[in-house]
This record gives sequence, C-alpha cells and structure tokens, in this order.
Amino acid sequence: MALKSFVEVRPDSHFPIQNLPYGVFKPAPNSVPRPGVAIGDYVLDLSEIASAGLFDGPILNNSSDVFHQPNLNRFLELGRPAWKEARATLQKLLSSTEPTLRDNANLRQKALVLSDNVELLLPIAIGDYTDFFSSKHHAKNCGTIFRGPENPIPPNWFHIPIAYHGRASSVVISGTDIIRPRGQSHPTGNSPPYFGPSLKLDYELEMAAVVGPGNELGKPVDVNQAAEHIFGLVLMNDWSARDIQAWEYVPLGPFLGKSFGTTISPWIVTLEALEPFSCDAPKQEPPPLPYLAEKISKNYDISLEVLIKPAGQKDSTVVTKTNFNHLYWTVTQQLAHHTINGCNLRPGDLLGTGTISGPEPESYGCLLELTWNGQNPLSLKGTTRKFLEDGDEVIITGYCKGNGYNIGFGTCEGKIVPSHP
Amino acid sequence: MALKSFVEVRPDSHFPIQNLPYGVFKPAPNSVPRPGVAIGDYVLDLSEIASAGLFDGPILNNSSDVFHQPNLNRFLELGRPAWKEARATLQKLLSSTEPTLRDNANLRQKALVLSDNVELLLPIAIGDYTDFFSSKHHAKNCGTIFRGPENPIPPNWFHIPIAYHGRASSVVISGTDIIRPRGQSHPTGNSPPYFGPSLKLDYELEMAAVVGPGNELGKPVDVNQAAEHIFGLVLMNDWSARDIQAWEYVPLGPFLGKSFGTTISPWIVTLEALEPFSCDAPKQEPPPLPYLAEKISKNYDISLEVLIKPAGQKDSTVVTKTNFNHLYWTVTQQLAHHTINGCNLRPGDLLGTGTISGPEPESYGCLLELTWNGQNPLSLKGTTRKFLEDGDEVIITGYCKGNGYNIGFGTCEGKIVPSHP
Ligand SMILES: [Ca+2]
Ligand SMILES: [Ca+2]
Ligand SMILES: [Mg+2]
Ligand SMILES: [Mg+2]
Ligand code: NI
Repeated sequence: MALKSFVEVRPDSHFPIQNLPYGVFKPAPNSVPRPGVAIGDYVLDLSEIASAGLFDGPILNNSSDVFHQPNLNRFLELGRPAWKEARATLQKLLSSTEPTLRDNANLRQKALVLSDNVELLLPIAIGDYTDFFSSKHHAKNCGTIFRGPENPIPPNWFHIPIAYHGRASSVVISGTDIIRPRGQSHPTGNSPPYFGPSLKLDYELEMAAVVGPGNELGKPVDVNQAAEHIFGLVLMNDWSARDIQAWEYVPLGPFLGKSFGTTISPWIVTLEALEPFSCDAPKQEPPPLPYLAEKISKNYDISLEVLIKPAGQKDSTVVTKTNFNHLYWTVTQQLAHHTINGCNLRPGDLLGTGTISGPEPESYGCLLELTWNGQNPLSLKGTTRKFLEDGDEVIITGYCKGNGYNIGFGTCEGKIVPSHP
Repeated sequence: MALKSFVEVRPDSHFPIQNLPYGVFKPAPNSVPRPGVAIGDYVLDLSEIASAGLFDGPILNNSSDVFHQPNLNRFLELGRPAWKEARATLQKLLSSTEPTLRDNANLRQKALVLSDNVELLLPIAIGDYTDFFSSKHHAKNCGTIFRGPENPIPPNWFHIPIAYHGRASSVVISGTDIIRPRGQSHPTGNSPPYFGPSLKLDYELEMAAVVGPGNELGKPVDVNQAAEHIFGLVLMNDWSARDIQAWEYVPLGPFLGKSFGTTISPWIVTLEALEPFSCDAPKQEPPPLPYLAEKISKNYDISLEVLIKPAGQKDSTVVTKTNFNHLYWTVTQQLAHHTINGCNLRPGDLLGTGTISGPEPESYGCLLELTWNGQNPLSLKGTTRKFLEDGDEVIITGYCKGNGYNIGFGTCEGKIVPSHP
C-alpha cells in the first residue's frame, strides 16, 4: 500500500508524501527566510524540525544548521548521502503511522504552516546560471526560422550539449512581474536599428537542474557520477525578447534578449522523488564521444504544460503540451560537458535544459515556434497572440503521474508589465 | 608640489599615494581576509584603520564595518560619495605631513604590512561576470580569421557594445595556475570532432570594470550616470581555447572555450585615481542611439603590455604593447547598454572590456591575432610560439604615466599547467 501522511493530501495534489520538494519561505512578512518542504496544502518548516532535534541521522545530526539558513546552498553542499537521510527522516516524520510530529500539537502548530499564508522565496543563491539547448525539435524549429530550412541544426549540435552562460542576477521566483525589456532591434534590409520596448516578447518552457555539491576548478565530473551533483529539478521560464535577440546574438550569443528576467518555480523536486518516473533517454546517433557516453542514460516522464491568461481575461488557455522526455541530451550529460574543460560548478548553480519542444505543433515550447515567428497568430479564448502583450500571464506547470498520486512541480508564473517610461 | 607619503615609494612604483588601489589580503596564512590599499611596497590594512576609528568622515563613520569583510562588496555598495570619502581619509593619513599614523609606531606596526609577506585574494565576490567585445581592431581581426575578409565586423557591432555572459565561478586571482582545458574540437571538413587537451590555448589582454552600487531589476542606468556605478578597473586575462571555441560557438556564443579560467589582477585602481589620465574616446560613426550617447565620452590613457615567459626559460619577452584608449565603446556605454533591458547589476559584478588590440601588429592583444591563428609563429628569445605551451607564463601589466609618478595596476599573471590525465 502506498505511503500516506497524517497531513491530509488531496488526490490531485502535487505534493504528497512521495514528493517532499524543498523550498525557502517566510512564515510572516518580518520573519527570517528558512527552508521547508511542501506537503499537501502545508509547508513543513525545517528550521523548527532541526530545532526540535529531529534530524537525528548520522550526517544531519551534526549539520542541522543547514536548515537555519536563508537558502538551501549549505544543504546542497552536503551531497546525496545527506539528501537521502533528510528524505528518510521527513518521510518517516510525516507518515500516518509515526506519532512524533502527528501527536505533538505544539510542534505541529509551529512547524506546519498553511502554504497560502507564507511567502515563497528563491530557494537558492545562484552563483552561475547556464542555459542549454537540448531539445532537437526546438533547435530545428529555431534554426529554420532564423537561418532557413537547409541544415537548420548546426553540425556541432549532435556532438555537444550546446549552452550559453546566462544572467544569474535576474533569476526571479514564480509570481514576480516581468517588466517588458527595451532595446535595439533591426528590421530586415539596410535601415538603421530602432530602439523601444520589445515587440516580440516570448516565454520559453524549460526545466532546470539545481547543482550540489559541485567540483573543484580543473577537476571534471565523470558523466556516470554526474547525477550525484544534481539535487533536483525546477520549472523555468526563460523569457526571451526575440527582436532584441535576433539583432544582438551574432557572434557572441544571446545577451540582453534574455537577461531581463528568468523565472523559476519555488519547489525543487528531488531526483529521489523523480526516480520512479525515469525512462530511457533517446538513442543518440552519432554516438557521443566517450566523455559523454553514459552507462545508463535516463530521462524522466514529466508532463509539462504552458497556459496563457491574456490581459483582461478570466480564462487561461493551454498553449503547449509537452514532456521532459523529449530532451536529446540528458541533464547528466549537460553537467559532465559543462565541467569537461575544468569549469567548476558550485552548490546552487542552475542548469536550464533549453526550451522543451516535442515533435507535434502543440508541443512547441515557445511562441516563436507556435506562431512561427508571428506568421500564424495563436487563437486563445476570445483573442489571438503573435507574442506576449502587457498584462498577459504565463503559467507553466508539470507533474509525473504515479500510481494513486502525482509528483508535481507546482507552477512557475509571471505577468508581463509595461516598460518603465 | 606633488602629494607625498611618509611611506617610502620608489619612483617606478605602481602604487604612490596618488593611486591607493583596493585589494583583499591575508597578513598571515591563518588570518581572516580583509581589505587593504597598496602604498609603495606595503599594504595598509583597512580593518586596522577602521578599528582605530580613523574613518571619521560622515558616511564611513557609521559604516566602517565594510572594512571588516572578506571582500569589498559592502564598500562597493555604498557608492561614490563613500569611495571619495575613503580616498580623502587615506590620502591624508598616508601623507608625509600628517602625524596620526606616521608618528604612531604601534598602529603603523599593525596596519602597514610588507606586500611580500601577504597573500592577495580575489577582492570581490563576483555575482555575474560579463565580457564585452569593444575593440574594433580585435573584432576586425577575429572576424577576418574566423569568417573571412569580406565584412569581418558584423553590422550590429557599430550599434551595440556586443557582449556575452561569462562564467563567474572560474574567475581567479593573479598567480593562480591555469590548467589546460580539455574539450572537443573539429578540424576542417567532414571528419568527426576529436577530444583532448586544447591545442590552441591563448591569452586575451583585457581590463575589467568593477561594479558598485548597481541597479534594481527593471530600472536601467542612464549612460551619463554610469560612471557612478564603476568603482575602478583591474587587468584581466580572458584565457581562451581557440579550438574549443571555434567548434562550439555557433549559435549561442563562447562557453567552454572560456569558462576554464579568467585571471584578474589583485588591485582595483579607482576611477578617481585614473581621472588625470582620462582622454577623449574615439568618435563613433554612425552615432550611437540616444541611450548610448554620452555628454562626455571618456577613455583613459593606460599603457598595457603582455609578456610571455616560455617554459624553461629565464627571460620573458614583450609580445603585446597597446593602450586602453583603443576601445571604441567606453566602459560607461558598456554599463548603460547592459542595463537598458532592465538587467540588474550588483556590487562586485565584473565587466570585461574585451581584448584590447590596437591598429599596429605589435598591439594585437592575443596570440590568435599575433600569429594569425597559428600561421605566423611568434619569435620569443630562443624559441617560437603559435599558441601557449605547458609551463608558459603570461604576465599582463599596465600603468598611466603621471608627472613624477605612475598610476599602475601591478601585474596579472598565470602559468599554464598540463591537463589532468
Ligand atoms: Ca532558453
Ligand atoms: Ca574576451
Ligand atoms: Mg531569461
Ligand atoms: Mg576566461
Ligand atoms: Ni553568472
């Protein structure tokens, strides 16, 4: 029989006892940020659990100060043995058959707070954020749109998990408004560039891996050890200004077309919780170079959706339906490639997967692909969109369907607000 | 008559009382890192000056804890009024006519330590590192080498201070060995990529601006206010693996060809100290868009040199002689452009200028240009180089020639060591 919690969890909840994703929250506006895990409609305050001495396993026993921190970085640094121990401790503590917390009204009162009453914060201090480009469908569609239908995918793409350094300072938590960026764009032909608010503001449906413990400068991580350095996954929206990006990106890559904001979901779902939903990664042809060849090459079966709630409307419309398992390069290959030159990763680094598009038109992960660069406007309920307008909200959600429960990611949301004058 | 210090300063020193660059150091292996300024052959320990209550100006009086920190970020956050106040306090304290420190043997003993006896550390915690591409000569040479002599400079270059996000985690302090990166490269033609230690390891002579206080997400910095957000400049070596870079950089820009290490010099020379050496920036044609048009467009007259000390040899050879004033886009234009989309800068962010090449062949700022991608090996004393070999040391230095004194940057050095097997 499935593990059950004494905390009531609705059948469609993203956060049953099988999940226990990690976040950081403030229980009241003036309180200090602290780590928590989501359970049903509640957040379990890990600083209270630590203060009560309930992290009593051999590792966390002596390191429970990692739960008295304003972010998860110190916990991430401890590595998988500590992560497994914390999960075992918390699953036991929250289970319906364990009296320690269930029957301690005073501790329950302090440690279990209603999600509706808390403020969720960025769970990690992000040292560096990297964005990959690992969906073949996305690479093909973008290449066709920007460079034409002949050889839309550059030849290096099949050998390298292509990526660029992103901007860490502008990664924000779900719910943060996104201010429409201003910048230079260039129409076709010989006219000079113009300046103004972006006219081609887009979302990108992505997920991102959260790194811990990382590696020393000069010491690459072996691809078969790479999973030991991935704590878990979040949903990510890599907001993109297509007009700014198109004019600036040759020859050094995307810069201001991306760096105005990147939204992540507040709850990090651990690889342990995702393990039952692992599946074979796509066969890679040509075979990757040995440093990228995995003994076991895994993806995860995570259903993903994007909804747009247009400005001034009550209803949102699903615009993308796709799956994490469309990724060609796995997150472990991404991480190993990132370090092969000696580059050091640190706890809390964020590795975006790149836009996750599938083969069917309804599985395209951004408006650039869905509207084919604005040529085919998208029908929403009662309106249409080529790109995002001020007041539009974009909601990304995702979950794994288990036997009698879901392992969900909650949502990653943001609303477009006008440029400052 | 020029201001003089009671601390003896040799005539060719980079660090007279007119300079006072900021760094972070440990006076002994087990002591905590703390800020200091360089004066002659000494470092003045700012934590001791703060503890003695000598930062008695209206701003620092209440904020002297910024000098009891392991990096300069909190000081940078305070902004130019605090920076000016600190400079005035320290110039007075170190001057030959001021008895406070000069005649206090006990304080002098604690606060003035010989540079030779200290360990210099990264002076800032770098949230994000950005590298620009602002030398026209470098852009033209690279474009010609990689894409041919027709239109070597992409059309956007004359409108945009082109840049890419770099890797913050692998920025290291001068003196740190650089481990030769391994990675994929691709010979010409249809052969598959190969894997191994880079065969085209290069240096790039750059300088970098250190940011403070920065801006809020969504609120761009006006170009005419941008200097208020630049604390000072350092020397930078953006080590580059040309073979890895050439194969990976389409379409998302440089990644592993750069992220294995970037070296900066330990002393941040302030804009105040550089002010006497400001000069007109080059005239820009076409004129920049209004958001990049400066009322006063300044460069600095900083002589820059690169020396290579080949493996196993005693002598080093000057291989590049150039000047900071060759930059087409100013550091203030770079900073304003970086924020125009709303991107937030934070204290301690690092903005590299890009390789600083001049028009003459001896002023090219990297081996890619000097040897024309390895076609014309460079003669050093007793040997030649196409690219860097294991054991080679690269030394960057730079200074402004004043009337009776120099404002120098010290050196930015690194030695290539073999890849780990
Ligand atoms: Ca992306
Ligand atoms: Ca560079
Ligand atoms: Mg983004
Ligand atoms: Mg570098
Ligand atoms: Ni970064």
